[in-house]
Amino acid sequence: MTELSRRTLLAGVAAAGAATAFEPFAGFAPARASAPLAGAQTPSFYRYKVGAYECTSVADGARTFPMPDTFVKNVPKDQALAAAEAAYMPKGMVTVPFNPQVINTGSKLVLIDTGNGQVPNAPVGKLLPNLAAAGIDPKTVDIVILSHLHPDHANGIKLADGSLAFPNAEIMAPAKDWAFWMSEENAAKAPNDMMKNYFSNVRKVFTGLENKVTKYDWGKEVAPGITSVDTNGHTPGHTSFVVASGSSKVLVQSDVTNIPELFLRNPDWHVAFDIDPVKAVETRRKFYDMAAAEKAMIVGFHFAFPSIGYVEKAGTGYRLIPAAWNPTI
Amino acid sequence: MTELSRRTLLAGVAAAGAATAFEPFAGFAPARASAPLAGAQTPSFYRYKVGAYECTSVADGARTFPMPDTFVKNVPKDQALAAAEAAYMPKGMVTVPFNPQVINTGSKLVLIDTGNGQVPNAPVGKLLPNLAAAGIDPKTVDIVILSHLHPDHANGIKLADGSLAFPNAEIMAPAKDWAFWMSEENAAKAPNDMMKNYFSNVRKVFTGLENKVTKYDWGKEVAPGITSVDTNGHTPGHTSFVVASGSSKVLVQSDVTNIPELFLRNPDWHVAFDIDPVKAVETRRKFYDMAAAEKAMIVGFHFAFPSIGYVEKAGTGYRLIPAAWNPTI
Repeated sequence: MTELSRRTLLAGVAAAGAATAFEPFAGFAPARASAPLAGAQTPSFYRYKVGAYECTSVADGARTFPMPDTFVKNVPKDQALAAAEAAYMPKGMVTVPFNPQVINTGSKLVLIDTGNGQVPNAPVGKLLPNLAAAGIDPKTVDIVILSHLHPDHANGIKLADGSLAFPNAEIMAPAKDWAFWMSEENAAKAPNDMMKNYFSNVRKVFTGLENKVTKYDWGKEVAPGITSVDTNGHTPGHTSFVVASGSSKVLVQSDVTNIPELFLRNPDWHVAFDIDPVKAVETRRKFYDMAAAEKAMIVGFHFAFPSIGYVEKAGTGYRLIPAAWNPTI
Repeated sequence: MTELSRRTLLAGVAAAGAATAFEPFAGFAPARASAPLAGAQTPSFYRYKVGAYECTSVADGARTFPMPDTFVKNVPKDQALAAAEAAYMPKGMVTVPFNPQVINTGSKLVLIDTGNGQVPNAPVGKLLPNLAAAGIDPKTVDIVILSHLHPDHANGIKLADGSLAFPNAEIMAPAKDWAFWMSEENAAKAPNDMMKNYFSNVRKVFTGLENKVTKYDWGKEVAPGITSVDTNGHTPGHTSFVVASGSSKVLVQSDVTNIPELFLRNPDWHVAFDIDPVKAVETRRKFYDMAAAEKAMIVGFHFAFPSIGYVEKAGTGYRLIPAAWNPTI
């Protein structure tokens, strides 16, 4: 059986006889302590440089769940499921990762987005342990910038006990998102349960912080070398960031697309979470057309960890080319 | 400047004025200890399950170097460089990563390939510190399986002082590679300096171990659930592995392709290290045609860490779809 064949390669034929093939010899093997299974993943953080800045992608985790019927609003569910399966997601399921970014400018330690907050018994809410593994003390964070006020980006500003997770940080929120979500008029006309929950969540998280939160505008340097860019559509105040140091830069896109396997490949698809889906599509195409032309490095909150890549045009949509992992910096 | 434009998105315009924009306020900021730059990457190991087996991809590092003129033997260098640049490698350069795999079957701790060994002041030779970070004691490794006897796979069996890096492990080498490299007749007719160095390296590493090394054949279960598969061409004894547990499996391809950005995209290209390049191309196409049809999970020694993915047909070649990072297992 020395031939490379479907049988040898794919069936693991010899392996199919593993138990019988090996057990007879087990008694003759030298006695060795079998190493125990570790049973835990490596802490998921990854460092990359942007000029003189040291950036750290820090996973808050990833959720894998049965795809809701309305996950993609403007295509049949079968089509959305086929795209997920083509991306090697488990059949019938969809995986959504969450990746806040830490930018150490040398003078300021900046956190962009904060993840889902502490969620018991969940595969998300891992920002704080992963920050700890990366040696980053939450007390040393100087500025927390929120890209928008959805719960998976904003809830991590507080611990489960309601206290501030980054007690010494200035908290910055997009002025347009703040105005939208804080409006009682908007809350009263929330069109569905999802939106009602979002309005209610914003109140729960930000009540008492009204005067503490700095509201920022677009086209401003919100922290050293970090410029806010209007990418509204996903939410009225949805913001991306150019992080620039020297001649280097990275685009922290936030949610210009939700998971790229569906919505970057098919930029015209409407994810359930886009508040103005038509504007979101327009923003998406404009953003990626420019990024592809410039071969810009992009960080996506919902890209698979470490969530850094490049976007290329592919057919009527785009394709994400993940950046190669650098084992040293 | 609230418009999403090339200017706001790509130039980091506001950022260009960073120093002047921020310095005037520095004196008013609350006094905070700036967090120091960490200056080090996360230890690069990653866990994944194959049935009941716990596998760990452990980076030995990655080398980035000016592309040698003969890196791809059968296409003009400009064409090879264009492929590297299209994969976002630095202009004129090529990056080659190295990723040994640890398979904990529950009864045996198996290491497939060992990396470059301890190399001073190099971005490779990191297997041992990364194993340590993963909590894997080299003394607990039961079996070391070498896919072939090239230095980047085999040299890690010894420490810099010449002692065995995995002192309690059985060392297994492909019988056909052992016979090829140990032949004095073959060594005497080595056609170039690269091959002369390889023959000399094999002697340096394996002299004194002739009776300790187990020579294995193809189509055998070389360790529990791990079947050796003939994928010769790269070297005469080059071997891949099917790792199977329950109904799950992964193909540990070893060097069926060198870096996928060049040789999976262009499977007919001859990397300088393929000893029988025509056979290597035949093996490559056969292997990936089957793997693509089966949507098999593949681990590639020279894929970017964590070196796990799926292969799809794309034009006249193939494309690697990296597996999504799972922040929990």
